[in-house]
Amino acid sequence: MKPASAIVIGTGLIGTSVALALRDRGVAVWLADADPAAAKLAVDIGAGQLLPDAGPEAGPADVAVLAVPPPAVAAELHGAQRRGLARCYTDVASVKQQPVAGARELGCDLTSYVPGHPLSGRERSGPAAARADLFLGRPWVICPLPENDDQAISLVESVPEACGAQVVAASPAEHDQWVALVSHAPHLVAVAMAARLTVAPPSALALAGQGLRDVTRIAAGDTGMWSQILSANAGPVSSVLRDVAAELTQAAGILDGLAGAAGPGDERTRTELAALLERGGAGVHRIPGKRGGPAPEFATVQVVIPDKPGELARLFLAAGEAGINIEDIGIEHSPGLPVGVAELWVRPEAVGPLTGVLAAAGWPVRR
Amino acid sequence: MKPASAIVIGTGLIGTSVALALRDRGVAVWLADADPAAAKLAVDIGAGQLLPDAGPEAGPADVAVLAVPPPAVAAELHGAQRRGLARCYTDVASVKQQPVAGARELGCDLTSYVPGHPLSGRERSGPAAARADLFLGRPWVICPLPENDDQAISLVESVPEACGAQVVAASPAEHDQWVALVSHAPHLVAVAMAARLTVAPPSALALAGQGLRDVTRIAAGDTGMWSQILSANAGPVSSVLRDVAAELTQAAGILDGLAGAAGPGDERTRTELAALLERGGAGVHRIPGKRGGPAPEFATVQVVIPDKPGELARLFLAAGEAGINIEDIGIEHSPGLPVGVAELWVRPEAVGPLTGVLAAAGWPVRR
Repeated sequence: MKPASAIVIGTGLIGTSVALALRDRGVAVWLADADPAAAKLAVDIGAGQLLPDAGPEAGPADVAVLAVPPPAVAAELHGAQRRGLARCYTDVASVKQQPVAGARELGCDLTSYVPGHPLSGRERSGPAAARADLFLGRPWVICPLPENDDQAISLVESVPEACGAQVVAASPAEHDQWVALVSHAPHLVAVAMAARLTVAPPSALALAGQGLRDVTRIAAGDTGMWSQILSANAGPVSSVLRDVAAELTQAAGILDGLAGAAGPGDERTRTELAALLERGGAGVHRIPGKRGGPAPEFATVQVVIPDKPGELARLFLAAGEAGINIEDIGIEHSPGLPVGVAELWVRPEAVGPLTGVLAAAGWPVRR
Repeated sequence: MKPASAIVIGTGLIGTSVALALRDRGVAVWLADADPAAAKLAVDIGAGQLLPDAGPEAGPADVAVLAVPPPAVAAELHGAQRRGLARCYTDVASVKQQPVAGARELGCDLTSYVPGHPLSGRERSGPAAARADLFLGRPWVICPLPENDDQAISLVESVPEACGAQVVAASPAEHDQWVALVSHAPHLVAVAMAARLTVAPPSALALAGQGLRDVTRIAAGDTGMWSQILSANAGPVSSVLRDVAAELTQAAGILDGLAGAAGPGDERTRTELAALLERGGAGVHRIPGKRGGPAPEFATVQVVIPDKPGELARLFLAAGEAGINIEDIGIEHSPGLPVGVAELWVRPEAVGPLTGVLAAAGWPVRR
């Protein structure tokens, strides 16, 4: 199912990507943005036509998507409903309780407003980064309200369906707790670790490996956007952060025990440390993998590659010709030297064939 | 400079890799391991010859490398010195104060023992994973002791030099603080975050993106090995963990303030949050990049790729033929769908040419 017509208000990355995806499915799309240049750019890349001040000439659209920052959703909804722009309304904000509370306060019509949140996984912004395929196969949370009429829910759900996303139903409170755990709190955990590096001696930082880079990477994200997201979901995020801080304090206590003791009691402290490490591993393995289910146990093959154009092409060509699908790739850096190690992730049954093919093609390869 | 002969005791990943690297440089290498099968495997892959019980027939080797777990270093050193196996000794343990203290306690000869630690960046184990190029361009910390004679220091430093590593001098205490900050504490931070996922509903985990995967990835590492490492560096790691826990508790306090307040004082709390996020970003940017200096600002190009054999090959071939070096690659997963997005990292000046080349070859591409 898909809407026949849609209005997208806010032509940033998400709004423009929704518009592009709907246009790809033949939906008539009107665009608006507080910044005329952003709306113009979205029109120019084929995301739709400019929304006239009086609304679409043919009357209200099937659905209006409010792709504005969390604190702006309620006012935008109120204005759009007063103008009668659409038969139903949704938003794409990454928190859900704040816009719903705001809409209630402003006296918006809650029969036609069905909140939503596409999990795009992108960390870019602006219409120029937009892609019609941004939501393909990704979850898109829809939070039906008690006041919603069924028709509005169906119409709003047709937006993620048309975008190729997977609809996940949740209450606004559930949604906010879930994203606090899997997205907002991890962001601040990376920030807290990275913040310690601001006072580190350069000699210490020179010893950094891929592990530190991975743990802290997302802390380099857009601070303005994150400040807004975290403020809007402050309660649930705070709760997770206190849990993580408690885990770390407990870990520090275990280590203090080990630093002092060498006698009895030592063994029990070691067991506590091992149990914490095991829980960490178990947590990682619960994160779903590429195919949506539990991460399959991919195997890796390592290949040494000179750091020059064409080498990875040669490697992938050899694999592709042998009909082997490389599921993922990591490149290990060798600071200061023109050589790297590519780690290729494949299904376990492909390890033998891939190793053979690469060795035959002259690659220094190890399983 | 390189040693003429070396003994490697402990043929795990690091020991065997050191042996392979030394053999590549023409050094005579003898191998020993408490597990005869591990020593035999290392001999079989060309890492050297088995060490006779009486030591090398030609007399003491130039240097003996003790590649055993941290708690075993001191006893191994004591035994090797009693047997007169070498002119000088080093180890490769990932902590340094514990083995030095142990060696002092056992009354080892400290003129000839120069502690060391190669930062290989690998998370594998066993001789089969060994590589002669494991240390190429990586830092290798050497911790000269006040008791060391200069000849021993020179000989021991010739080992990392022969392995292509960069020698970094530090005291054992400095070393342990540095690795606590950039490696051991980040491991437990990832563990603490991942441990919270063990009690998460599957619906929450289904919303996970690449950010959560990156933050928690290393928590899936070998728990036995990490338990040993963390125990051996318990004091310095505990200290960093308490700092990170304090950052998180402070962040939770800021968020609690934002969750309650909507009036005055709010603005100052928002400023505190922004300042924390900025410090995180600043910390990430202090981590040296691929070339050893500050991370250059690579630009990215995104390409949509069908999830089937040969597609990445075609892509890299097109880039390679145009003389464009792809510095790194990330593959964005689309759960449940046969399509992915490859993010290619290139020098900024290569973005235009790469986009042009890929578009010409029919790839759906965006900067």
